[in-house]
Amino acid sequence: MTARTAGPVLIVGSGLLGASIGHALRALDVDVALEDSSPSTLDLAIDYGAGRRAESDEKPALVVVAVPPDQLAAVIGAALVRFPDALVTDVGSVKVSPLAELVENGAPIERYLGSHPLAGRERGGAISARADIFLGRPWVITPHAQTTSAQIHAIEALVLDVGAAPVQLSPEEHDHSVALISHVPQLVASLMAARLVDAPSAAVAIAGQGVRDVTRVAASSPELWVQILTANAAQVGPVLSAIRDDLATLEAAIVAHGAPGARRTIAELLRSGNTGVARLPGKHGGDARFAQLVVLIDDRPGQIAKLLTEVGELGVNLEDLRLEHSPGAQIGIVELSIVPEARDRLEEELTTRGWRIAG
Amino acid sequence: MTARTAGPVLIVGSGLLGASIGHALRALDVDVALEDSSPSTLDLAIDYGAGRRAESDEKPALVVVAVPPDQLAAVIGAALVRFPDALVTDVGSVKVSPLAELVENGAPIERYLGSHPLAGRERGGAISARADIFLGRPWVITPHAQTTSAQIHAIEALVLDVGAAPVQLSPEEHDHSVALISHVPQLVASLMAARLVDAPSAAVAIAGQGVRDVTRVAASSPELWVQILTANAAQVGPVLSAIRDDLATLEAAIVAHGAPGARRTIAELLRSGNTGVARLPGKHGGDARFAQLVVLIDDRPGQIAKLLTEVGELGVNLEDLRLEHSPGAQIGIVELSIVPEARDRLEEELTTRGWRIAG
Repeated sequence: MTARTAGPVLIVGSGLLGASIGHALRALDVDVALEDSSPSTLDLAIDYGAGRRAESDEKPALVVVAVPPDQLAAVIGAALVRFPDALVTDVGSVKVSPLAELVENGAPIERYLGSHPLAGRERGGAISARADIFLGRPWVITPHAQTTSAQIHAIEALVLDVGAAPVQLSPEEHDHSVALISHVPQLVASLMAARLVDAPSAAVAIAGQGVRDVTRVAASSPELWVQILTANAAQVGPVLSAIRDDLATLEAAIVAHGAPGARRTIAELLRSGNTGVARLPGKHGGDARFAQLVVLIDDRPGQIAKLLTEVGELGVNLEDLRLEHSPGAQIGIVELSIVPEARDRLEEELTTRGWRIAG
Repeated sequence: MTARTAGPVLIVGSGLLGASIGHALRALDVDVALEDSSPSTLDLAIDYGAGRRAESDEKPALVVVAVPPDQLAAVIGAALVRFPDALVTDVGSVKVSPLAELVENGAPIERYLGSHPLAGRERGGAISARADIFLGRPWVITPHAQTTSAQIHAIEALVLDVGAAPVQLSPEEHDHSVALISHVPQLVASLMAARLVDAPSAAVAIAGQGVRDVTRVAASSPELWVQILTANAAQVGPVLSAIRDDLATLEAAIVAHGAPGARRTIAELLRSGNTGVARLPGKHGGDARFAQLVVLIDDRPGQIAKLLTEVGELGVNLEDLRLEHSPGAQIGIVELSIVPEARDRLEEELTTRGWRIAG
């Protein structure tokens, strides 16, 4: 594959995202120069092959700023001044506030075009960087009033080169969107998980997949999230406020559930939840378009592979798969999502082959 | 296997849970009689083999009440009067309020011992019933002051017969526990999902696994949940109230994030979330005890089975597995959870075999 991106590309910040972009571009033979405020991070990224050390007289065509949210505006502003012929982008998860800060500081924003790959890993750092982390992921490009179509094409070239899917949104649309689908879900998970800190042992011992799913992202890094949340306060605040209103209404209705209309109030909130979750795209357990088949397996190596091999032999395409282990039991529960037409036949065939179907 | 449960067992309510208990006991040759207020539900349960039709002069040793939450107290009370020699239990998801109602009505509660299997399926009804749905699941038994150990043993026999794991909690401990690990997580998921009803299409289009996990249970039935939530209002209310307090504090800190201490307030909430989620048992993605390896696969039949077969051949035990499809891409992402010691070797071996590792 030939690179669409014209180098040299200077990546400022050689952590997980920066180094991963470096790996992906190096795989296409793009000339990649790296910088990082931490000498050891920079050395690691170079050792792993994410690019070469930047020269003092570097002349990049494109600068990619991949630094923590609270340093974005300063580092982007510095890059615009240092490299007067370069297009500068960044990969930060908030877009309005860095742009506003650049405008305020009189930076030459006509050469800045922000972007945001919705990709990452649970572990950070140059050592965790991989060329593949962007594959198939959305990468939002956020043009402003002075952005030219040539600049959009240049960032799209980068996005396509690393295997991501370019999406165009205004900085405001982007920040509102990520508040709804990333920042507030993070907070809601944390608010719920915080209630478990003092939960009786008996309660956590009987916890099942539901609460695990609701709270999974609450394991994220507080340091990083404080930066993201404060940078996007303008969008996160109103969504939190709407949830607080709904919560107050809901709580009042539950406490006074004998009052006229209280049950209806609770039902309406739950029904809105039904409607909202149905809007999320993608294949996942409980997806209304698919039928689910729950199979019980012994909790030992090779059982899931054996099951899926047989599903494949039966010519049934697996749309999704969820695995659950029963607390304290040597039983695993595998939920297969398949097209509804295939469900009865698959259940029959698997039963014949000796699998235990639990639903 | 010989049944521990002494029959005849009368199951009042032949929906998903009642009929599933019937199937499990019938498999052990226990005499199971069925009742249901809906003649067609009863006929279906009998046709599927969950038990026989109850006679008018039935003399059960054990009555299992498996009716919706708002009918529990009335149906349990009636059973205690109709069957003066029987032990009566129920499988409702709230335990304090039905017991209180029975006491208030002067029912002979010395023969009532409540219980609650933490099991279910996304689809209800006798037609979805299966003997296996309780396998490995916790089943809480909730003794009160007049409960005898012989009665506890009788219900434990039922629990063990259907393959579940008996757990003893007081009715109050039970209701507090399920508020924390089931009822409030349901509401939190619904509150978040309700914010997506009016979300821009662009926002839902870039949604990823995080928000899908947080909101998954929001797809549940409003009718059923209104009954559960109002029956457990005494325990759900205070947890909601604590979340509302945390949310107000958090929202204020995010809105006024420049103020002294605001960032610390946000960080503390996120850190409490870290602590809370770490208390949940069980194997799941992101579990700190395991290492994760992310493998990219083509989104076509047989690929996951092939991958898992090779993982098995390499002698690595899979602790958990999560599957994710990239929106709009023909790529599937499989996250394998394995013991940390096996990670580097597995990554190397899978890479050698041509798999694309994304992290």
